[in-house]
Amino acid sequence: MNLACYNYNIKEFEYMRVYFDNAASTQTAKSVVDIMKKTMEEDYANPSAKHIMGIEAENYYKDAAQTVAETMKVNPKEIVFTSGGTESNNMALIGAAQAYKRSGKHIITSSIEHASVYEPLAYLKEEGFEISVLKTDGLGHIDLEELKDCIRKDTILVSIMLVNNEVGAVEPADEISGIIKKANPKIIFHADAIQAYGKYKIYPKKKGIDLLSASGHKLHGPKGVGFLYVNENIRLKPIVFGGGQQRGLRSGTINTPGIAAMGEAARSAYTDFDSKIKKITDIKDYIIDNIKDLEGVKVNSQKGLLSAPHVLSITVQGIKSEVLLHAFEAKNIYFSSGSACSSNHPRVSKTLKAIGLSDEEAFSTIRLSFSEYNTVSEADYFLRNFNELIPLLKKFK
Amino acid sequence: MNLACYNYNIKEFEYMRVYFDNAASTQTAKSVVDIMKKTMEEDYANPSAKHIMGIEAENYYKDAAQTVAETMKVNPKEIVFTSGGTESNNMALIGAAQAYKRSGKHIITSSIEHASVYEPLAYLKEEGFEISVLKTDGLGHIDLEELKDCIRKDTILVSIMLVNNEVGAVEPADEISGIIKKANPKIIFHADAIQAYGKYKIYPKKKGIDLLSASGHKLHGPKGVGFLYVNENIRLKPIVFGGGQQRGLRSGTINTPGIAAMGEAARSAYTDFDSKIKKITDIKDYIIDNIKDLEGVKVNSQKGLLSAPHVLSITVQGIKSEVLLHAFEAKNIYFSSGSACSSNHPRVSKTLKAIGLSDEEAFSTIRLSFSEYNTVSEADYFLRNFNELIPLLKKFK
Repeated sequence: MNLACYNYNIKEFEYMRVYFDNAASTQTAKSVVDIMKKTMEEDYANPSAKHIMGIEAENYYKDAAQTVAETMKVNPKEIVFTSGGTESNNMALIGAAQAYKRSGKHIITSSIEHASVYEPLAYLKEEGFEISVLKTDGLGHIDLEELKDCIRKDTILVSIMLVNNEVGAVEPADEISGIIKKANPKIIFHADAIQAYGKYKIYPKKKGIDLLSASGHKLHGPKGVGFLYVNENIRLKPIVFGGGQQRGLRSGTINTPGIAAMGEAARSAYTDFDSKIKKITDIKDYIIDNIKDLEGVKVNSQKGLLSAPHVLSITVQGIKSEVLLHAFEAKNIYFSSGSACSSNHPRVSKTLKAIGLSDEEAFSTIRLSFSEYNTVSEADYFLRNFNELIPLLKKFK
Repeated sequence: MNLACYNYNIKEFEYMRVYFDNAASTQTAKSVVDIMKKTMEEDYANPSAKHIMGIEAENYYKDAAQTVAETMKVNPKEIVFTSGGTESNNMALIGAAQAYKRSGKHIITSSIEHASVYEPLAYLKEEGFEISVLKTDGLGHIDLEELKDCIRKDTILVSIMLVNNEVGAVEPADEISGIIKKANPKIIFHADAIQAYGKYKIYPKKKGIDLLSASGHKLHGPKGVGFLYVNENIRLKPIVFGGGQQRGLRSGTINTPGIAAMGEAARSAYTDFDSKIKKITDIKDYIIDNIKDLEGVKVNSQKGLLSAPHVLSITVQGIKSEVLLHAFEAKNIYFSSGSACSSNHPRVSKTLKAIGLSDEEAFSTIRLSFSEYNTVSEADYFLRNFNELIPLLKKFK
């Protein structure tokens, strides 16, 4: 299909709502809502209850663990369901650091991690751990030589995200784990896969990933659920204590609706996977191809699968991202100014600084993010508005 | 209404499913499912997003905080939403202990707390805190004199549940806070209200409660959501770190569906409150009145509002609770053997031991728990089976 020749009908734009903020959160799939509804209205018993209604509720948990495990070719017992990506990252980092602190207190991470990684690491620093932060190049890729140099005898944990949420940079997990495990097979490799899971086929055992975090609402699941893959040989100290559910790793009543939803979202994401990813990538590439000639516009993401299929970071020199966001909002087009995953404190994005943008450029950067629910027609609508609005906004700034 | 004269029709029992395990988990209300569905299918943006779709999503969070706050006459800013009761208790205990440890490291609790209280306290003990555990009487009430004697100069926190989950004992919050605050106004009073919220009108500011935990799925909300009331004068150290949502107290994408659901469940629970509670209490009292004459049967809960309206603990001497559970399950009646909130390790319930039951009695104790969805007709169906099955099971044991 020649996307440039996509023959759109102006009429279809009239009531179009273009949601290009899927890296922030996605619309929940109908099949996901359906299974949640069933667990809430019919199979609502406590999965820890010993009667048949409890066992039936528990089966949703078992099925979801099985489904999620299959997408990564791991054991269902290696899946711990959490309340979301933030908790998964916290459990991985604090849980591993506390469990292995007798072997050392040195942790390595990168300069483009999400707050749910760098904030627990800041907490661990207060607790006496030492954190080394790797630089990245202009595309957001970590320096593997620096990683090699950084590993010490007391290094216990390396945490590197697989896909950056702001620019879509993809980190080379195989090479990272190769370097780590060669230096010391006992060093734990945690991968924040919150933007990667559902967009890539990830096999942690093959890639040498020991802990892997994911979130439901990034892949048409609901908010409030995620999981952590914990390799069977890794011990974690829990961060939440109680009834001992999920083999003691995550106490609290098993969240049947959320967990069943996570299972269904995972199943759905990896069904017709290649065609979905192609669709999303085509939308990204179509926009990149058609805006790159505009003056002062700089694309911070790569085409195709060199960077994440669904993330497109664009700097529009001279126009604040907030202005862009509201101008497009008026056209019923929604995207993010930097990362929407953090609270309302305006500060320069660490990631955008790390890839070499100036403060001014960072504050003039927007992120479009796509899902399989988007269409090329929406991309066209965005482009038409982009090409009209940018010169206009520059004129009146 | 004279319950004993309730004129039931045998026919209506035929396909009856009697769910008397509402203290373990409840059926989600239709209005709760509806609002969740809307947030997932329509208002799915990330509430931290700065565009109008994000603001619309954030409004669910604000509305829910307002609704929950109104039920307790507190400020919406004092409500922190969590992933459930277990997280609320952990956040309260670990969060307060870590924030105030410079003032002292002594914590007081009771011998009938839920695992989500005593396990975080066990963790804090490992971290160097000292935990005093108050005894209870045969009804599960703590000894207020012992509490007085227990308070020390380095006491920073007292955690006592409002309603016990296994026998329904109600602790005197006013008197507890009176004693604590008289000894030292700086001591923090945490109340686990997971079985109390929605069953009692609780006004923390009037009662001198500083931190109060609640859970959604105990009151026809979904699993996977709860809240912690945090008095505005109390500082907590977060236990989960990240994007700084909820004023930094609980990072992680705002769980719009769960939080909206918690708001709706709270609103619903406190609408027609008195008649709902009367209905539940009547069912409990009806069963107590009609089983107390059976030999070897001992009721561990009190009638009326002396103990919780919805919890009825019964010891059937000589028959293991698991046997009872499965015998009744065959009749489509579901209840709990002890507490269903913990994992599958069979151990003697701390609560049942604390109220003076022998190990044998504790293993022969069942818990029925009711909700507004139950009926007197169901109670009759239970009683008819109870009166038939107990002599039979005793004969063949």
